Amino acid sequence: MALELLQNNNIYASVDLGGTNIAVAVGRWDGQILAEGTLPTQGHEGPERVIARIAWLLRDVSSLPLTAVGVGVPGLADRQAGRTLFLPNLPSQWRGVPVAEQLAERLGCPAYLLNDARMAALGELDFGYGREVEDFIFLTLGTGIGGGVVLGGRLHAGPLGAAGELGHMTVEPDGPLCGCGSRGCLETLASATALRAGAIRLLLMGQAPALFALVEGDLNRVSPALLADCGDPAIEALIDRTADYLGIGIANAVLLLHPQAVVLGGGLAQMGERLFSRVRDAVSARARMFPLDGLRIVGSRTGQQAATLGGIALAKRKGLL
Amino acid sequence: MALELLQNNNIYASVDLGGTNIAVAVGRWDGQILAEGTLPTQGHEGPERVIARIAWLLRDVSSLPLTAVGVGVPGLADRQAGRTLFLPNLPSQWRGVPVAEQLAERLGCPAYLLNDARMAALGELDFGYGREVEDFIFLTLGTGIGGGVVLGGRLHAGPLGAAGELGHMTVEPDGPLCGCGSRGCLETLASATALRAGAIRLLLMGQAPALFALVEGDLNRVSPALLADCGDPAIEALIDRTADYLGIGIANAVLLLHPQAVVLGGGLAQMGERLFSRVRDAVSARARMFPLDGLRIVGSRTGQQAATLGGIALAKRKGLL
Repeated sequence: MALELLQNNNIYASVDLGGTNIAVAVGRWDGQILAEGTLPTQGHEGPERVIARIAWLLRDVSSLPLTAVGVGVPGLADRQAGRTLFLPNLPSQWRGVPVAEQLAERLGCPAYLLNDARMAALGELDFGYGREVEDFIFLTLGTGIGGGVVLGGRLHAGPLGAAGELGHMTVEPDGPLCGCGSRGCLETLASATALRAGAIRLLLMGQAPALFALVEGDLNRVSPALLADCGDPAIEALIDRTADYLGIGIANAVLLLHPQAVVLGGGLAQMGERLFSRVRDAVSARARMFPLDGLRIVGSRTGQQAATLGGIALAKRKGLL
Repeated sequence: MALELLQNNNIYASVDLGGTNIAVAVGRWDGQILAEGTLPTQGHEGPERVIARIAWLLRDVSSLPLTAVGVGVPGLADRQAGRTLFLPNLPSQWRGVPVAEQLAERLGCPAYLLNDARMAALGELDFGYGREVEDFIFLTLGTGIGGGVVLGGRLHAGPLGAAGELGHMTVEPDGPLCGCGSRGCLETLASATALRAGAIRLLLMGQAPALFALVEGDLNRVSPALLADCGDPAIEALIDRTADYLGIGIANAVLLLHPQAVVLGGGLAQMGERLFSRVRDAVSARARMFPLDGLRIVGSRTGQQAATLGGIALAKRKGLL
């Protein structure tokens, strides 16, 4: 009881370092967010300036004293040492940058690093589906596809936070070229980006007249949520194909781990049942002899807040998964 | 010390129930096998007769008093209840058969059930690579492809022993039809059976003259170990293609779990480095941005004994994984 009262006063911060933007939040132990803010990353200025900007942004959104900070990074990090190892989407790739130490110095509280997708999975573990199930696979279907594996109530991230990289599972050996250099990675075929690009292609080819009318010809307005209801047969077929590839990736992971649930987040998950029901069918068609009874394939509970809450969770846990 | 002395006197039995044959062994706590035997399963006689034959065979190979028996079954089992749930390759499919209870009654000692592939993984865990690494993926490349996942020194089998079913990962969405009803499962493209069938096809088509000479035209003599050295370019290409598919399945599992090792057993693994080196290249080509340094892709330490030793391990562990 005394401990819980103590905990109640603690204030944690969450940092999501992306190639384009930095997003920060300050919140309480129970996941209540008190303040949020974003800034462009401006990675070309180098790690030290970016880290300074993170600290400045945190101080700007809230003057509350911080107990700890959880930091999600877009790549590999040595969690123990608090150093980034390889952030492919940032200039100079941040090899061996002591981010935790530098942030801790500037903020006066400890900082903990984790891969950003795993941080989102941690958010779902502590504040979402993890309250109901012990074993689940988490997928963020956004610009790319990130993932996380939770077994026995613990996030299995591996020593470098690399485990759970479902976006680069091969689901079509001779499929489209991926940014990673391989072909047919799940994220080239079933990310929100892949679906948007496919829909825009159909629109330009004159095969999606309803979508064209819906967005008034503005390609920038094409989004997964819009596609679910537009009614063009070619778009419907595209959604089905996307869900079928997701089904392959998910079935492969389910066969390996037999989790209780697969939790889908990110922009694509906003399509809801239109997507999920087809994904369930695809998983059943692939993992045919597998005991799928009781497997839940559902939308994230934390939604767009997964990473933010994951940062709070990481800080609260003192970096321990 | 006293406990170890006690353990030293214990005799355990291992049963591998297959669709065609029953294989049993009796051994000591340290994996030393004292006696072995096999009999045709004759599944058409029904579960009760098959179970009676297992007990008879065990008594026939050794009259030593047994402390416990570990039983591998080709399908799903409720491990807690000791009942089979679904054995697709046996007549009547053995739904709800209390195998553990019936064997215990006949043998006068407890019996524990586990899926056969997971039992082999348990053998590798307790008597093979598991002595060196905590996290590994085990694959038996035989008639089909079985698998097992070891994390933190424990076999992750799931409640029904179903987790680790790598043979049914989809690696080619429109690939060959699999016995499970799906298409392009890893075992349709990279099992010992798939490789043999592919080699026989080339031989019949006149594209493998060296192999034809090697087996003196006898198709029954075509085996993976023979193929590694036969020198026909078409056979070399077939081996490469097989290894590339294995590489896809293994890369997908590695991305999810980031293990320290991938351990390959079964008939195909007898091809040794000819196969392994190409598999390593294929994994690197697929999991491109992933930290693969230090990942070992190696042959099983327990070889053809994995399942036998797994039964001893299961009995010793009193069914606890």
